[in-house]
Amino acid sequence: MITLSSDFDWPYPAAMKGVIASRCDARLIDVTHQFPRGELRTTAFWLGEILPYFPPSVHLVVVDPGVGTDRDILVVRAGDHLLVGPDNGVLAHPASCLGGPRKAFALQEIESDSETFHGRDVFAPLAAELHGMDPADVGSLDSLIEREEIDAIRFPDPEVDDDTAKGTVLVIDGFGNVITNLPGSVLADRMGRSVRVNDESVPVRPSYGHVPVGARLATVGSHGNVELAVNQGRGSTAFDLESGDSVTVNRES
Amino acid sequence: MITLSSDFDWPYPAAMKGVIASRCDARLIDVTHQFPRGELRTTAFWLGEILPYFPPSVHLVVVDPGVGTDRDILVVRAGDHLLVGPDNGVLAHPASCLGGPRKAFALQEIESDSETFHGRDVFAPLAAELHGMDPADVGSLDSLIEREEIDAIRFPDPEVDDDTAKGTVLVIDGFGNVITNLPGSVLADRMGRSVRVNDESVPVRPSYGHVPVGARLATVGSHGNVELAVNQGRGSTAFDLESGDSVTVNRES
Amino acid sequence: MITLSSDFDWPYPAAMKGVIASRCDARLIDVTHQFPRGELRTTAFWLGEILPYFPPSVHLVVVDPGVGTDRDILVVRAGDHLLVGPDNGVLAHPASCLGGPRKAFALQEIESDSETFHGRDVFAPLAAELHGMDPADVGSLDSLIEREEIDAIRFPDPEVDDDTAKGTVLVIDGFGNVITNLPGSVLADRMGRSVRVNDESVPVRPSYGHVPVGARLATVGSHGNVELAVNQGRGSTAFDLESGDSVTVNRES
Repeated sequence: MITLSSDFDWPYPAAMKGVIASRCDARLIDVTHQFPRGELRTTAFWLGEILPYFPPSVHLVVVDPGVGTDRDILVVRAGDHLLVGPDNGVLAHPASCLGGPRKAFALQEIESDSETFHGRDVFAPLAAELHGMDPADVGSLDSLIEREEIDAIRFPDPEVDDDTAKGTVLVIDGFGNVITNLPGSVLADRMGRSVRVNDESVPVRPSYGHVPVGARLATVGSHGNVELAVNQGRGSTAFDLESGDSVTVNRES
Repeated sequence: MITLSSDFDWPYPAAMKGVIASRCDARLIDVTHQFPRGELRTTAFWLGEILPYFPPSVHLVVVDPGVGTDRDILVVRAGDHLLVGPDNGVLAHPASCLGGPRKAFALQEIESDSETFHGRDVFAPLAAELHGMDPADVGSLDSLIEREEIDAIRFPDPEVDDDTAKGTVLVIDGFGNVITNLPGSVLADRMGRSVRVNDESVPVRPSYGHVPVGARLATVGSHGNVELAVNQGRGSTAFDLESGDSVTVNRES
Repeated sequence: MITLSSDFDWPYPAAMKGVIASRCDARLIDVTHQFPRGELRTTAFWLGEILPYFPPSVHLVVVDPGVGTDRDILVVRAGDHLLVGPDNGVLAHPASCLGGPRKAFALQEIESDSETFHGRDVFAPLAAELHGMDPADVGSLDSLIEREEIDAIRFPDPEVDDDTAKGTVLVIDGFGNVITNLPGSVLADRMGRSVRVNDESVPVRPSYGHVPVGARLATVGSHGNVELAVNQGRGSTAFDLESGDSVTVNRES
């Protein structure tokens, strides 16, 4: 199986699929081609959330604002999975979420018909070549050279003590839910009660429908972190928060 | 085959696909993940239009604003098809359109890693489990309990007499076409002539290109109902109609 | 394999997929369903860029503002590929890009449940019927009649001399990159230097990341033509150009 992720929207993903389908019979599943253009942090976050739900696969990741410059093209083994993408930091977090033995390689040479669409001319053929390989054997390919380190997008660490947790908004999802880097454990014994979020009282509930339509809540999202939301509305608007903003949660009694 | 429908946009559908692909080799086809967020009526309408064109399948439907509350999770047999989704009314209409012997079941227990993403943690594993089963045997699963009734979104009935038909706008499609609940038979002997729609004269034509670009028409849409449209334009704007509005068609001579 | 292209967005493509999946086991790959509504030129351009990357396939193309009028429905053989779509000009350019022996056929009779959704009722069943056929044998189908000529969207020819190249913007892609009809050879010996584009000096670079973020450049795009872009920005805005506009490139020394 090959999964495909990019910030291409349409129609470029189809060219990559054609290239792959011309070279192997791998099943193709889109993660998404709607990643915000060039946003490496958002891409890395979501890939870390989603790729671990897939069976062993080759994961093709083309969010690559540096296409055609001297950035390397990587193959990263993460357990039974292989990631293929640019060396711009986007692969490290999902590789870490996938777990297992990890090794990184770079393409020795980049040969491409175009300098602006390596997704079609380099990444897709490489993914097709890797399809069906044992990830443990990928180092045997002459085209790859082992890399000690790869670039890594890093997420800020939260500061959590008994009373107060200080963190950051990682991303806003499509529903407008505010996903923070605060661990869900911050809310563990507050379920059904309330906390102070940036100094305002907010009910803590197991899911959205436990407050009236339009009302705010804090919950533990599907990612395991503290999420700030509005039942059938947009938490990002109600809490006036966007990606990168600070969030302080006080576990008021 | 498993079809997938949701209001998730991106990236959450990919997590469901990963879960299913980890558990079975079912072919996956997206109906859409663009259903308007939480809009049960629109979702039910389109599923009723589209699912009957599929071969026998498991249809996974996750438009579920009540996720994590005490709403049940249903499996509905409709002939050779199985529907999986929340008990919020969204499944009844497509089940009825699919036809065949019908039976409904609820999950006895909902066990989930998260309370905010049952699509990934409950619905997707359930769809994978149902894949390949004979729909007639689904009642044999210990995890399910038969349900006499399920919640049902109901569509308003039109009032049709010889001269006048009074109905409602069901949905606006992406082209801006206004889809009503009036049966196409209302226009049957008016083809090539005209009717009065909300008191204005509108030509009745077999399809859009039979009037000039930008002009209005009434036609029988692909759903068999009266549709109000503009050739290469938006009927919803030209007729000033939106979902839920009243439409009166007078069959003027 | 059957590829699917349309301007339907959602949910209509799913009905076509259901119809095909009910009739054959062809693998289905979406090219896109986001073609701008009824824009034949844009559709033809992108299909010409993308379909040649696919292995031999049936390519279903439903950008069809004349649905239900007397326009013909075509099957075009292009080498090992078959194209299915309306006779509105959209198929000629991709057929020419696919290359190989070419022959065109029209459906003798159009039988359809609806006059507004031939994609579902005529094109999809036809694509399913063609799946698995040797493209050389398609003329043997009783339902088809050979056509000497088909309608063709034509793209303007550029005027290129030693100093100056005059061309046209063909399309703006989703990144805002301005894709012209000027051949990349216009920039061949200017790489790393600059040219004058509509009388303003613009650096010529192999790809976007060779200029600072937000800066303009001229490059050879993945289509082989001159492309005007902004690194991590929108070239269409920075150059104030849209589809159909004139572009003059002076190869200043």
